[in-house]
Order: sequence, then structure tokens, then C-alpha cells
Amino acid sequence: MSHAATFHALHAGPDILVLPNAWDAASAALMADAGAKAVATSSAAVAWAHGYADGDVLPVPTLIRALEEIARILPVPLTADIEGGYSDDPGTVADTVRAVIGAGAVGINLEDGRRAPDLHARKIEAVREAATKAGVDLFINARTDVYLAQLVAPDLAEAEAIRRARLYAGAGASGIFIPFANEAALIGRLAAAAPLPLNIMSFAGVPTAAQLQTLGVRRLSSATGLFKAAFAALQSATQAYLASGDPGPLAAAGTGAPNFNARFG
Amino acid sequence: MSHAATFHALHAGPDILVLPNAWDAASAALMADAGAKAVATSSAAVAWAHGYADGDVLPVPTLIRALEEIARILPVPLTADIEGGYSDDPGTVADTVRAVIGAGAVGINLEDGRRAPDLHARKIEAVREAATKAGVDLFINARTDVYLAQLVAPDLAEAEAIRRARLYAGAGASGIFIPFANEAALIGRLAAAAPLPLNIMSFAGVPTAAQLQTLGVRRLSSATGLFKAAFAALQSATQAYLASGDPGPLAAAGTGAPNFNARFG
Repeated sequence: MSHAATFHALHAGPDILVLPNAWDAASAALMADAGAKAVATSSAAVAWAHGYADGDVLPVPTLIRALEEIARILPVPLTADIEGGYSDDPGTVADTVRAVIGAGAVGINLEDGRRAPDLHARKIEAVREAATKAGVDLFINARTDVYLAQLVAPDLAEAEAIRRARLYAGAGASGIFIPFANEAALIGRLAAAAPLPLNIMSFAGVPTAAQLQTLGVRRLSSATGLFKAAFAALQSATQAYLASGDPGPLAAAGTGAPNFNARFG
Repeated sequence: MSHAATFHALHAGPDILVLPNAWDAASAALMADAGAKAVATSSAAVAWAHGYADGDVLPVPTLIRALEEIARILPVPLTADIEGGYSDDPGTVADTVRAVIGAGAVGINLEDGRRAPDLHARKIEAVREAATKAGVDLFINARTDVYLAQLVAPDLAEAEAIRRARLYAGAGASGIFIPFANEAALIGRLAAAAPLPLNIMSFAGVPTAAQLQTLGVRRLSSATGLFKAAFAALQSATQAYLASGDPGPLAAAGTGAPNFNARFG
């Protein structure tokens, strides 16, 4: 089975796909070797690793090289978080997705943010057409920021999220990602009403993977959580090292790190 | 004062330079913001981040782009670990160093490994000439692997390390790096006999920075220690996430991570 077919099948349920978000080849290899059935990127974490803020400012060639490096060493399907597609011109977004597919990804995340839903639907249509021409059954995960960016009044959010899920499904999306929908009852209603597999973002206060699975959720994303876990540890280790140069804690902390020379050699 | 002059001055003593080794823009920014007076790269950690093993196999264009990304956001001097120069032709190594300088680094680490010391000296001469022509007082840190690679019988190692330090100094090196010389008495003798500022590698069993300073050491390197601290934490967090999807520990661990959107925005 191709990586694309495998990745679609991982969303078929009833098991939830617990998807970790990497940012470079080392983090992606670690996640796959730890048992991840697929690996995603986090657009924010990739941008940070290369010295850019989140928000459509990462140079696309930098993104493509990062995806190539990850795909080169990854034995499981790769899906790329590409923010809003780094453009509001559907044709330009389609060009970027052609390069993303060329780099080895079989899925994308594409977020609407504060843009008009109709523009987002046109981007999805353009991306679907480009992927089909490239011969790839791309998993297009349409992210709506109805909750994350509080796009409408709270009492209208649920209906707006469902409306957008239907709009994006009609445009060719394969999944719907609704970050910051955190409450169990709401998540269950969204999973039941959405015409696409539902993706939830891991976050403090969100139900566990097992609970989400019983609510009908098909995919959980760690987003920037794993990057932050690594860089919080780096922050502590750096402060200790600069204060004393004492290598003890570093060496001890390093005991659990993978042997990347063996992994990549 | 230029970054190059600042970096040379940081080796003038008596204070030891506690130098952390980064691998990407995020880790380098974190280290500078934590108070590092300069930041180095670790060639092994840079290779791993891009999916390659250590040992002169990282594509040079990948190295140069990583250095450019780090230098773009770094407010302190940057020195680049370039393994053995990715070639045994001195002219080719000089070409690479011209690109390293162009990327924004004001220092390099260049290791002899199992190569003939005379070849290493010729590389240093070629690099010094290229840097001088580029108008940069490059800090050339000559690394000798006499101890790390056990190049000679144990009772000959100290004399061989000193012989090489003198040879490399004569070829134009600015500092001498002797990893795996871990014992305090030995380190003190090496610091006294070497004609160049001595750099020691942080490692389990190596004296603390304060002790190394009293022994006459001028620079301490974390090598891959900080990378390993971050990726050991990532390993634990990934295993916990894949097992339960429980976002609690991730969110908690992320509390100490820097705000890279604010840092790079």
C-alpha cells in the first residue's frame, strides 16, 4: 500500500490516529522509531527551528528542503502543515503543494485563519486538482480556526464550524481539523455532525486519546507540544551549563536520547 | 568591536568561555538569550538535525544554510564546527571556509581525526590564507583527536598532543581543542605547555568550569550534550504522548520553553 493510501486508512477509525508533530529529520526519526504510525510537521515549530515566527513568513524553499530531509529518513507517511499555504492565490498555493508532494509528503494541513471561507474552499479545490494531476491521493486536512481565532460569537461557533466542514468537504478536503474545540460534549457533537474525519489538537484540558476515540475523533495532533517539551528541557540544560559548566546533568539527561549516528549511518 | 575581535578576546583569559553548541536557529537563539557570550555549532548535532550521521557526510550547502539561519538571528559571535572540513584537499576546505565566513561565522573548529598531522596543518594554512584575504581575523580552533580517537599509545598521548598543538599554531591556528583529555592534572599540564588557548569538551567526569578555569583552560564546549538533553526530553514526551495522547505533561513541560514567535517576530 502506498504511503498515501496508508495515511487515508489511518483515519478510517475506529482507532484514533495519535499523530506527533516534528520539525526536523532528527525529531521525525525519533517519533517514527518510538512507534508513530505517521508523522506530521508543525508549521510553527518548523518556522521556529529556522528562525522565523509562525504566520506564513517561512520561505517556501526552506519548508520544502525541511520536508525533503524528513521524508528521506522516514519509514512512515509524512503530512506537512503548510499554514495558510503561504499565499492567498489558489494557483500559487497549488504550486507550493506540488512541491510539497515532490518532497515526499502525502498529506497537508491548510488553515483558513481569518480569511473568507470561500477563499479557503477555492484553495482546497486548486490543491485537490493539482494533487490529482500529480497522481497522488493527497490527504487534505482542512483546518478551521473558528474556535482558535474566535472568528464568531461563542453561541454561533459550533454551527459555523459545521458549515465550514461541509464547505471544505465539498471542495475536496479529506479531513477537518478544529483546534481549541476542547470540551468533550462539543467534540462529540462536532464528530457526529462533521462529514469528514475530525482532528483535535492536544492541549491542556483536552480529553485523553482514549476519551477522544470514544467521542468519534479520528486524529489527535500534538501541534507544538513536543517541540516545547524539547526546548523547555534545552532551556533548563543550557542555564545549568552556562552557570557551572558542570556536564553531569547534561550527560545524565542525554542517556535517553536516540543514537542518531546508528539511525542515520 | 567586530564579532571576530570579540570572539578572540573571549579566549584571552583568565575567565573561561563556557560555549554552548547549537544546531539550528531556535537552539542558538535560546542559548544567546540565556546569556551565552558566543554560540558554537556542533557538527554532529547539525548533521543529526538534517538526517545525516556525524563524519564529514553532511552536504556543505546544508551546513551553510544552517549557519546563515543562525547568524541571521544571533546577537553574539558564531563559530562553526566543520568536522574535518568535508574534504582532504586544502583548497577545497578553504573554499568551504570562505562560504562559512560568508554565512556569518567568525570562527571554526577543524579536526584532524585519523588524518596525518601535516595534512591538517596544510588545511589550517589554506584556511588562514583564505580568511586573511576575506579580511576576517577568523578564530581557527584546531581540534586534535589524539585522546578521542586514541591515535597513539597512552604513554605517548600527552607529548603527541603538545607536538600537534605547536604544529597547528605554526600553521595559523588560534586555539587548540583536545577532547577526551578529562583528568585535572593532565589538563593543567596541557594548558601550561600548549602555545594556544586550550579548549576542553564537557563530558561526564570532566572538572567543572570553575575548576577548569583554575587549571588554565580558556574554553569549554558542550559538544552534543545540550542536543542530547533536548532530544532525551523529546523521547520521553513522545513516548508519553503516543501511549496516551494525554497533553498534560506536554503542556506542563512546555511552560519553560521560550516564546519564539516573540523572539523572531
